[in-house]
Amino acid sequence: MGNQQKIDTIRSHIDTIDSAILKLLHKRLGYAKEIGRLKKASSRGIEDREREEEILQRLLSENSELLSDKTVETVFTAIIAACRRSQ
Amino acid sequence: MGNQQKIDTIRSHIDTIDSAILKLLHKRLGYAKEIGRLKKASSRGIEDREREEEILQRLLSENSELLSDKTVETVFTAIIAACRRSQ
Repeated sequence: MGNQQKIDTIRSHIDTIDSAILKLLHKRLGYAKEIGRLKKASSRGIEDREREEEILQRLLSENSELLSDKTVETVFTAIIAACRRSQ
Repeated sequence: MGNQQKIDTIRSHIDTIDSAILKLLHKRLGYAKEIGRLKKASSRGIEDREREEEILQRLLSENSELLSDKTVETVFTAIIAACRRSQ
């Protein structure tokens, strides 16, 4: 197999992964909306920041050396903010 | 079940989703590194931009109304940039 063919094959794996991530994002957003409905508006601000910190710490502890902690923070901060906006 | 208990249950679902996304990111990064090794450095710039556009268009076509297109773009631009930096 030539390099270009190998690249094309790997790219189709990446496409599959991206679609799976997108599906998980849809699911996550559904849950975030549910939480938004259940939460009292009053305590939301502080609790949200604590929860965001907790999520990031948990994921950093699960991170591999392959991916930088900075990347995990950037990607998940974007995910969390997006879900929060849609709550 | 009280609201707080419901929230806690949903949050544990979100934690599971986040871990699954992180695992997929690790996998995606592994593939991106492989592509980095296979690609000739010369044509990388233009090809990368075309590929990024292709990825985003494909994912936007799979997006649901639940999630804004802007969010998909923000999250995946962060993911793509992170994988590219690590190539």
